Amino acid sequence: MPSPAEVTPGLVWVPELADPGHRIALDPESSRYVARVCRARVGEQVQLTDGAGGWAATRVLDTRPHVTLEIERIERTPRARSAHLLCGVPEGERGDWMVEKLAELGVHVLQPIDCERAAWDRFEQRRERWDRLALAALRQSRSRFRMAIQTPMPLVAALEALPAGHVGVVAAQGGRPAGVEPVPGAAIVAGAVGPSPGFSPRERDAFEGRGWGRIALAGNRLRTETAALAWAAWWARGTPATEPASDFDSEA
Amino acid sequence: MPSPAEVTPGLVWVPELADPGHRIALDPESSRYVARVCRARVGEQVQLTDGAGGWAATRVLDTRPHVTLEIERIERTPRARSAHLLCGVPEGERGDWMVEKLAELGVHVLQPIDCERAAWDRFEQRRERWDRLALAALRQSRSRFRMAIQTPMPLVAALEALPAGHVGVVAAQGGRPAGVEPVPGAAIVAGAVGPSPGFSPRERDAFEGRGWGRIALAGNRLRTETAALAWAAWWARGTPATEPASDFDSEA
Repeated sequence: MPSPAEVTPGLVWVPELADPGHRIALDPESSRYVARVCRARVGEQVQLTDGAGGWAATRVLDTRPHVTLEIERIERTPRARSAHLLCGVPEGERGDWMVEKLAELGVHVLQPIDCERAAWDRFEQRRERWDRLALAALRQSRSRFRMAIQTPMPLVAALEALPAGHVGVVAAQGGRPAGVEPVPGAAIVAGAVGPSPGFSPRERDAFEGRGWGRIALAGNRLRTETAALAWAAWWARGTPATEPASDFDSEA
Repeated sequence: MPSPAEVTPGLVWVPELADPGHRIALDPESSRYVARVCRARVGEQVQLTDGAGGWAATRVLDTRPHVTLEIERIERTPRARSAHLLCGVPEGERGDWMVEKLAELGVHVLQPIDCERAAWDRFEQRRERWDRLALAALRQSRSRFRMAIQTPMPLVAALEALPAGHVGVVAAQGGRPAGVEPVPGAAIVAGAVGPSPGFSPRERDAFEGRGWGRIALAGNRLRTETAALAWAAWWARGTPATEPASDFDSEA
């Protein structure tokens, strides 16, 4: 286990940053994390992000009843690369860790898609938990960008809603090997992974008609959530580091 | 949800295949899968693998009390590429899905490593469940190769035990971007992912002294199990398909 000195606080998310010299009070959950988990004391440093590229170095002014911080320095990083992943429903409760892992890998938007062969159910019951998991992953991975989880929509509507200028790449076992695909460098990459019974012929036509590429992520057949993760890992390998990395980072 | 006709039986693992014309009786768990889950009936086809490249087309002779199959045809595929992953302990119960996903992606050997900053505990209590998860992943992913889960050993011993001719690549946030790494095509690729408190300086020296490469899997800091999965996805993108793929496969 790490020694206490190594439990560096991750980035703490706040809805909005303020200018240097201003104070911010953390919500109860973030207060608990900073004061109890990281054991930050008055005078110590804590880093914040607004999940939209904003980053702040702050100092602890108070820890009770909630943690209050004074902002010392602000940085704003534009999002250099962005991944929008359209994802069919995985089986059972596999969505939880899928959300966590996609957020860790830095996916920008997770768009659940209702397909002809399988639709998302009980999404609203899960949204709150998934938003929490995505925030915890941001903190853990020290990312300045928060993953947005959208409400499910039909595939074609989701395709229409993608930002202009995206390059689309669908995971397909018969596609080109992902190793030779040059796309991860593109500014906006859109991906799609089918639900476990797969895309219908009409859905396949929707990708083809929009000029989407097709990549094979692995030799084996992958479950929906594994394909989603492999897609995100394929995309993430071209992502620049979000913080100065030590030679061998502690986690990865 | 898939219609019944789409619930194609995955590959069923048996410890040993027999020559064409011979019979094989499945164990109770595989019998249940074939007869109850896939609802295979007498006269229908079932595919088997020994998890070591052997594959058999068989026909159901009987389903009670256990499923009995007659072997009709055998194929043997040599393992073209092999991944050995040395992995530090992930936090909490995250090992379960890590095992499942590494097996799905086609990792050959998972070697848990005890590191200076964190060691595996309760491994023996978990081994049986993990072996079951790895077999279920083989079935699901229709792979002819079973992932072997080794007993934990110290990092240096694990490095010494790797097969001759391997190319070693450790996940390190300060490494080269994985996108430009040519290694996934190598026959035997060994990987390493540290436990959550990271590798010690002495452990880092052990990789460096053996000429291991270092790759950055993502811009964000990754948890141990996420880094393991991203490493496997990076490696798997060069893996040839294990079965003839339809144009858009149903799962991936």
